[in-house]
Amino acid sequence: MGYTAAVAGASGYAGGELLRILLTHPDIEIGALTAGGNAGTALGAHHPHLLPLADRVLAETTVETLAGHDVVFLALPHGQSAAIADRLGDDVLVVDCGADFRLTDPAAWEAFYGSPHAGTWPYGLPELPGARAALTGTRRVAVPGCYPTCGTLALFPALAEGLVEPEVVVVAASGTSGAGRAPKPTLIASEVMGAASVYGVGGAHRHNPEFVQNLSAVAGTPVTVSFTPVLVPMPRGILATCSAPLRPGVGAAEARAAYERRLADEPFVHLLPEGTWPTTAMTLGANTALLQVTVDEAAGRLVAVAAIDNLTKGTAGGAIQSANIALGLPETTGLPVTGVAP
Amino acid sequence: MGYTAAVAGASGYAGGELLRILLTHPDIEIGALTAGGNAGTALGAHHPHLLPLADRVLAETTVETLAGHDVVFLALPHGQSAAIADRLGDDVLVVDCGADFRLTDPAAWEAFYGSPHAGTWPYGLPELPGARAALTGTRRVAVPGCYPTCGTLALFPALAEGLVEPEVVVVAASGTSGAGRAPKPTLIASEVMGAASVYGVGGAHRHNPEFVQNLSAVAGTPVTVSFTPVLVPMPRGILATCSAPLRPGVGAAEARAAYERRLADEPFVHLLPEGTWPTTAMTLGANTALLQVTVDEAAGRLVAVAAIDNLTKGTAGGAIQSANIALGLPETTGLPVTGVAP
Amino acid sequence: MGYTAAVAGASGYAGGELLRILLTHPDIEIGALTAGGNAGTALGAHHPHLLPLADRVLAETTVETLAGHDVVFLALPHGQSAAIADRLGDDVLVVDCGADFRLTDPAAWEAFYGSPHAGTWPYGLPELPGARAALTGTRRVAVPGCYPTCGTLALFPALAEGLVEPEVVVVAASGTSGAGRAPKPTLIASEVMGAASVYGVGGAHRHNPEFVQNLSAVAGTPVTVSFTPVLVPMPRGILATCSAPLRPGVGAAEARAAYERRLADEPFVHLLPEGTWPTTAMTLGANTALLQVTVDEAAGRLVAVAAIDNLTKGTAGGAIQSANIALGLPETTGLPVTGVAP
Amino acid sequence: MGYTAAVAGASGYAGGELLRILLTHPDIEIGALTAGGNAGTALGAHHPHLLPLADRVLAETTVETLAGHDVVFLALPHGQSAAIADRLGDDVLVVDCGADFRLTDPAAWEAFYGSPHAGTWPYGLPELPGARAALTGTRRVAVPGCYPTCGTLALFPALAEGLVEPEVVVVAASGTSGAGRAPKPTLIASEVMGAASVYGVGGAHRHNPEFVQNLSAVAGTPVTVSFTPVLVPMPRGILATCSAPLRPGVGAAEARAAYERRLADEPFVHLLPEGTWPTTAMTLGANTALLQVTVDEAAGRLVAVAAIDNLTKGTAGGAIQSANIALGLPETTGLPVTGVAP
Repeated sequence: MGYTAAVAGASGYAGGELLRILLTHPDIEIGALTAGGNAGTALGAHHPHLLPLADRVLAETTVETLAGHDVVFLALPHGQSAAIADRLGDDVLVVDCGADFRLTDPAAWEAFYGSPHAGTWPYGLPELPGARAALTGTRRVAVPGCYPTCGTLALFPALAEGLVEPEVVVVAASGTSGAGRAPKPTLIASEVMGAASVYGVGGAHRHNPEFVQNLSAVAGTPVTVSFTPVLVPMPRGILATCSAPLRPGVGAAEARAAYERRLADEPFVHLLPEGTWPTTAMTLGANTALLQVTVDEAAGRLVAVAAIDNLTKGTAGGAIQSANIALGLPETTGLPVTGVAP
Repeated sequence: MGYTAAVAGASGYAGGELLRILLTHPDIEIGALTAGGNAGTALGAHHPHLLPLADRVLAETTVETLAGHDVVFLALPHGQSAAIADRLGDDVLVVDCGADFRLTDPAAWEAFYGSPHAGTWPYGLPELPGARAALTGTRRVAVPGCYPTCGTLALFPALAEGLVEPEVVVVAASGTSGAGRAPKPTLIASEVMGAASVYGVGGAHRHNPEFVQNLSAVAGTPVTVSFTPVLVPMPRGILATCSAPLRPGVGAAEARAAYERRLADEPFVHLLPEGTWPTTAMTLGANTALLQVTVDEAAGRLVAVAAIDNLTKGTAGGAIQSANIALGLPETTGLPVTGVAP
Repeated sequence: MGYTAAVAGASGYAGGELLRILLTHPDIEIGALTAGGNAGTALGAHHPHLLPLADRVLAETTVETLAGHDVVFLALPHGQSAAIADRLGDDVLVVDCGADFRLTDPAAWEAFYGSPHAGTWPYGLPELPGARAALTGTRRVAVPGCYPTCGTLALFPALAEGLVEPEVVVVAASGTSGAGRAPKPTLIASEVMGAASVYGVGGAHRHNPEFVQNLSAVAGTPVTVSFTPVLVPMPRGILATCSAPLRPGVGAAEARAAYERRLADEPFVHLLPEGTWPTTAMTLGANTALLQVTVDEAAGRLVAVAAIDNLTKGTAGGAIQSANIALGLPETTGLPVTGVAP
Repeated sequence: MGYTAAVAGASGYAGGELLRILLTHPDIEIGALTAGGNAGTALGAHHPHLLPLADRVLAETTVETLAGHDVVFLALPHGQSAAIADRLGDDVLVVDCGADFRLTDPAAWEAFYGSPHAGTWPYGLPELPGARAALTGTRRVAVPGCYPTCGTLALFPALAEGLVEPEVVVVAASGTSGAGRAPKPTLIASEVMGAASVYGVGGAHRHNPEFVQNLSAVAGTPVTVSFTPVLVPMPRGILATCSAPLRPGVGAAEARAAYERRLADEPFVHLLPEGTWPTTAMTLGANTALLQVTVDEAAGRLVAVAAIDNLTKGTAGGAIQSANIALGLPETTGLPVTGVAP
């Protein structure tokens, strides 16, 4: 147990998933658990599945309760992280699961979030070129959004290797936990079960600029992204179907070879055997992304599909993966790689 | 009761849905019910929800059992319709819910189905330009596939009005009933619940050439179609997310106006109020397609989304809609327009 | 169109289901639609599946907006019906989908609802002995709760015929729509999908005294009822598994014969063929109850199972069935009998 | 890594779950993986979520392939275990996840399974009185059925402490994975989603005699069991609602105290705080049983509810728990206690 960690926002889904993983992490001990409106209640009232922590009482999310840990995971509503991080000190590793520090372009931030830009932290998607170097030893990590995690992993090899034109289309089916735990009329079970629906269509979703930022950086040229999230009746999982126009002369073999090259050493991202396509169920509870790629010659497009668990690789697992790197631990420490299926 | 109808393949899902609707159709009386391997069993063993027909025993699917009706609905495996239709006589209205007579191009047929092309019948998507005229008085109808029904309805106004380049991307989430009733390992509930998955990726799905045929005819120029079906955990419904590059000068207002023009008089296809997006649950059991359209200026694409019930508007309801036209009945006769929700 | 009907509480699930059925009811025309907090909004914002009524604006639920109709359906929170009904006049048929007038015993009401007892109206479960006579010509109907509808139908033949001791156990799996539309943390999709849970255990559910009242009346002696509702991940449907100790000498044949006798003439309640057990999916959207009964000789118990759609036969369909009787229409008028399956 | 284990039937759900847990078991190394019809294929084709084992090729299930391991887990169809176990030698720990050796009464076996009785092995439900002693050092374990695991845990404290009469009613909602992986028409997703159904009603389910055996042994007197399994749309989980007539003078406080006494030292069975009821989702993937108990004074019954994951505590986790005891390892070694939720 080299390190202690506090979790702010412990009663939400991201907080719960952080704790589920940390409970078996060999090098990080769980410290303070804090909440906003749920402060003063027992964790078991919110996460009865986290039996070993059931009696822990949630403290208020304040700098005082969070201070004194080696790592602070923030799973807070957008806009609340900066005030806390500023006062935690530069020697504390702050891992923000929210959006506040993901974007580099203040104009993009303000256009999509409507508030002043808080800044930019090293981006916690280690699989991107250069990301591990930026994360090593850092004391600030911006955890990616769940959709950008999935779609970026599906597409970055194609853009990095110049297989496609910089005009991508991403349609991503997602389970409901990505929308969080606050009860909204559109998220009650009666409305969701038996239904597929879209939202944030036409470039309106807040994850749009994050997609553009990631893929443009990889491609070395501005990339346009048409992104549509689709809500489907399952609690967890994102399946991103991604495509882009093929560059001349690129065939299925080139595409597969490029993906194999880019992913060969990745511990958490797996290109499936030819002909096998990802399904979200295979990633449930695991810090794993499953990929497949092909080309559609008639349509002239490369098609790549990725599946992740939005709460694990898409949020809490990705956060801990980056924290491991930042702390100098082996990147895979404490992270589950096998899903719970069926 | 002006007409009698036989249903071949009555024990399957398409057959069951045809019967569910015909039970309350004021002008068509249910005649012979036939099946293949299930011949000799009671319909109630396969469709306990069709209480008024529970004791009807399924006959063998033969020309003899089907003959003598005004209408014969065929819900058979691919490749079996021609032999029956040829011997039923030209005065019988034959409505084929299978694929055999949908495609005009024999090469496309053979490439995707691997058998000789049986021919081409009037295509039962009345909303397409010219389709109603071709269906009026016909005695042969090829019912469209469920995915092409949904995606074509979403995109034809854009292509007919020249709003977009002829390069479309369709990602369609579907419930499981479209895959039929035969038990396959990938379709058992344990594998499907909690999972989103893709299949037929990269232009491999048999509905691909049907998309190309429909959209090219509407556009008056060859259209490329990148189509990916996504299986999601619900029994019914298709939600098609469709996009294409915008032509210069096309904005959201032009797009909406074009869709309004093209759909104004349609009884079963509805453009939702601005800002409201379709959900499959709203169409459950109804012969209704719900649409919305917008433009993504940053990505330079028009995005249109359509929702249908794959068994109703996508198969059996569409079949009866076309049969109504062929018989000279009001097109809406006997067809439910309100879904069962939630 | 002999009659006009207003629906109070039109934006909720019971209100929506009333309207779905009334849209095709040949003898009742839809009049005023009213709501509480949703007054002033369009019905389409709440029930996009009810396309023909999408533009109807919801009025305030007041005596003034409801007056002037032949029938007023009340789908209101508990405790609000009396004040309205009192002022609507004795010639208006008031059908209350709430609990206010179901119980005959003021003490039972007060114990479970904690407010003064409003009174007792004829109970809208026509299948119970004597119920049709009480409903004929009445101008007040108390629609049963969804669980008591299902469980009472499963058990009343056994109690009426003296097959069992008056000590019954009911465990009923239910979809989520019975809990209504108000967003609560336990009803969001992420919590419900993949989960089965219990609530109101140990006699705490408000439908308990209604069970006792119904079954005791049928048995002619006090009946104890151990009732446990189980929430399962589906939007609609109740499946009640009911059992009671067998009286000496009662076997499977006697049990089946008794159920056949009691249900022979029922238009909406069907004893399935021997060996076939009900499933909720077969009743989706239909005013149908499906039953089966057997005896467990080793355990000495009769076991009866019933399936209904909680919103249709369990609420809105049952309400219209009773309204038909009260108005002197054929009982089955306008009511769907075939479910939407799969 | 003190021990090696072979898994027979590795391509099924029980086999997959055994492997998922064994992958992180510190003291058992995974050896041979065998199958019947799937021999010769890669494990990844059946369990893509078990990434570290994806390339392992399944051997034939024979004595030869299984011999040479310290532990052999059998996850085979009923009737196949004896022939293998007889030849594996007395020093090999054989843990049978099938039914063959669960029952002590040959007549009960033959009545429910229709084949000669193979014998009786120590029963792998360590929480039962005397079970741990019988399991310690044994080289043969009969893993309980999933329903009896859940229902027995819910009821044994009440029967052991004499709180109730020996006449119990168990209605247990189950996910679909308990029915295994063979595709059957009733288990395809289209039939299951949106549906609750019963099967094996009236004492016909094969787990019935196992319930009777367990509960009678605990009570010290014959117990009658009315057991009804209910299939609900979720992949995993069992929620058993159990009740029995209260003995005179037993109230809620006595009941709770008795359960606390009986469960105080159990590592995997937890009595929840008063007022909190179990949900299956909280046990997903964990070797945990969650319980709650109350009394219904009006109905004169004790009601106990238990939730488990049928594949984990109900099969593979329970098997490994018993194997740990048999091998002399700490009982909790390698077993997950926190579920994956939501």
